[in-house]
Amino acid sequence: MTLETKSTAKSFGGVQGVYTHQSAACACAMTFAVFVPPHAPGTRLPVLWYLSGLTCTHANVMEKGEYRKAAAEHGVIIVCPDTSPRGESVADVPDNWKMGCGAGFYVDATETPWARNYQMFSYVTQELPALVAQHFPADMTRQSIFGHSMGGHGALVAALRNPGRYRSVSAFAPITHPMLADWSAPALSAYLGTDEKAQRAFDTVALIEDGARVGALLVDQGTADPFLKDGLKPELLDTACKKAGIPLTLRMQEGYDHSYFFISTFMAEHIGWHAARLKA
Amino acid sequence: MTLETKSTAKSFGGVQGVYTHQSAACACAMTFAVFVPPHAPGTRLPVLWYLSGLTCTHANVMEKGEYRKAAAEHGVIIVCPDTSPRGESVADVPDNWKMGCGAGFYVDATETPWARNYQMFSYVTQELPALVAQHFPADMTRQSIFGHSMGGHGALVAALRNPGRYRSVSAFAPITHPMLADWSAPALSAYLGTDEKAQRAFDTVALIEDGARVGALLVDQGTADPFLKDGLKPELLDTACKKAGIPLTLRMQEGYDHSYFFISTFMAEHIGWHAARLKA
Repeated sequence: MTLETKSTAKSFGGVQGVYTHQSAACACAMTFAVFVPPHAPGTRLPVLWYLSGLTCTHANVMEKGEYRKAAAEHGVIIVCPDTSPRGESVADVPDNWKMGCGAGFYVDATETPWARNYQMFSYVTQELPALVAQHFPADMTRQSIFGHSMGGHGALVAALRNPGRYRSVSAFAPITHPMLADWSAPALSAYLGTDEKAQRAFDTVALIEDGARVGALLVDQGTADPFLKDGLKPELLDTACKKAGIPLTLRMQEGYDHSYFFISTFMAEHIGWHAARLKA
Repeated sequence: MTLETKSTAKSFGGVQGVYTHQSAACACAMTFAVFVPPHAPGTRLPVLWYLSGLTCTHANVMEKGEYRKAAAEHGVIIVCPDTSPRGESVADVPDNWKMGCGAGFYVDATETPWARNYQMFSYVTQELPALVAQHFPADMTRQSIFGHSMGGHGALVAALRNPGRYRSVSAFAPITHPMLADWSAPALSAYLGTDEKAQRAFDTVALIEDGARVGALLVDQGTADPFLKDGLKPELLDTACKKAGIPLTLRMQEGYDHSYFFISTFMAEHIGWHAARLKA
């Protein structure tokens, strides 16, 4: 699998790069960002995946996430995929930010016209990990995953559906039950059809209700998040985790919103939390 | 002087805001960003000014500069002005990123058509400080200033021309001798005319040669900066400071470029360096 380097820059002693490649899963060119912290030659480093939210590309967290200092201190590679397939041949709804480009929802679509390109679950859990293993000094036996909003949903689903793959999972303001939330239900129905079983396989609360499990789970949620009442529903995640015996640390952060001003505030804590588990 | 709040967001326990006001100096609406760290009610905090580089607005450093964590830890207000006047009635050269909007060079222009709006020196050293003093919990007896590239030039000139105003000054990759650099000389001639004396009053190396002084000075410069050979000329600053007896700490940072990936790496050190002097 070949990789094209779009840019690299030294930062916090490591290298922040942006790369592109032809994705088989998504049948289009895909762009992603990788930060490799300073390390001794020959060392293999643990990998922490960050999945972004609606409307984002790889660039939002790369520019605003403030993850490099903590990643350098802990010696963790950070990989930031895009949020959807993109390009002229990719199905889209340009006037709808909750569906199509920028809104892949990390599912493997089954419905026309989405199925041809919208295979983001396979992309972030299969194809891109293989590419990262090939081109970066990564120890793929030590992976963790986190994300924001739609990407928090993606991180939780990736961990719940791949037991043992990720040592830890955390999220900032995740969409916990996308089947039911106004801003995600139409996309899930479009990508997966209206069959409830198909949707439950890509829904955190439903997966937990249906028996999927993860280890410890850390979630930060701002109390001033304008999307909190619309559909993030951390209380549903709390209930599901309590019933399932999953140790959830849900921190309601007073006065914080849904932006990277919120995420960056708690980024270093999340990276430190993952690093403790990646190095255990 | 009235101020309109464009946005506020909680971040690192403080408030990151964006504000706009009608500027008398620049004869147009001006936008700027202020981060007020967490503090006890009634406390007045020191103020650190950050002047941005060519093509930037207040937003670049606000989004990519990673200054809030250190500012919160040290209890320092960070103010980020725009880099020029803007608006339909403001003179501009749209196809030239080194002149006009985004390229105010922090001078008070004397030439037509620039003089009407391009009064950025008065704006950042007089008008905006008065506004900040009025609307934020700022202790204006404790100010410091820093900046990047064109903004490094601006910070140095502001400090050299206002002895005693700023307790400390530092810069990332500053334009040290803009009269002579290819990317700045045309703008200086356009704004100030070709009279050498007028230009020397807004040129760091010339001001030092002509007797202006600052206290300790910290400069970081990346060795992989593509603009290093074109005109940043840190060696001229080094020579001028040595002759003048100004204690310059010039750190050539191996492998770093001109971007915010470079700036963010050393941001916390600069803020800590200023904070030590602001609290001394």
